[in-house]
Amino acid sequence: MLHFEDFPVGEIATYGSYKLTREAILAFAREYDPQPFHLDEEAAKSTMLGGLAASGWHACCILMRLNCDGFMLTSTSMGAPGIDEVKWLAPLRPDVTLSVRRTTLEARVSKSRPEMGLVKFLFELIADDKTVVTTQTGSIMFGRRQAA
Amino acid sequence: MLHFEDFPVGEIATYGSYKLTREAILAFAREYDPQPFHLDEEAAKSTMLGGLAASGWHACCILMRLNCDGFMLTSTSMGAPGIDEVKWLAPLRPDVTLSVRRTTLEARVSKSRPEMGLVKFLFELIADDKTVVTTQTGSIMFGRRQAA
Repeated sequence: MLHFEDFPVGEIATYGSYKLTREAILAFAREYDPQPFHLDEEAAKSTMLGGLAASGWHACCILMRLNCDGFMLTSTSMGAPGIDEVKWLAPLRPDVTLSVRRTTLEARVSKSRPEMGLVKFLFELIADDKTVVTTQTGSIMFGRRQAA
Repeated sequence: MLHFEDFPVGEIATYGSYKLTREAILAFAREYDPQPFHLDEEAAKSTMLGGLAASGWHACCILMRLNCDGFMLTSTSMGAPGIDEVKWLAPLRPDVTLSVRRTTLEARVSKSRPEMGLVKFLFELIADDKTVVTTQTGSIMFGRRQAA
């Protein structure tokens, strides 16, 4: 199990492979973000996105799944208090394969709960053509090794 | 259609009604956030959440759907560049009905694209017992009325 101590500041890790289909983009949009540019190729062409693109929230959810499979499910993660920032930098198109680059920005032991620590990460969601589609920064709470 | 000019700073609006079931919490978690405290009541009891609770990303997606139905789909929304901040303040339990309180924080015309403006909102996702479950701040791009 990965503990707080296993995320040194400055470390960069890459992981994951998530194939995003057009049908998945449409299904997500129908349920959570039914704006025309996430549902209809023709409607999307005349918008800033320039063509069908996934909801930004879909990108966040895929990133979460890649983080679960990449390290969180084999860690002492206790969840997260929130998200510091999300940037939707480029349209997320159908039929791309996504991976993650994770950079550890900060790490500190909790003052109120010394058995845990907070690790602040930058997550970059990257398409197979190397485009950084979405970035997210935020802290995750982990159990400390000495507390275990 | 709601334009940039229709969101005066300081305005507070409330809208929406979204019934969240246990099955929906589990289905979302299986797909995007399969941490034990989002999937298993027994596993969740011993965690900080104190019982089964929805993924924080599920809360964000429900908020997006309520915003679409509440005003975005009848507006000149051009989407959003990202999210400034998300706070997951309280566990989101099964069988609650959620609504939104939206506060307009700032509004400014785009310098590079004067036909549009950015409106910064605080969104609060509220359970039927008045608990504020999640807050989110961020800006949405809207077409201006004079440009139409």
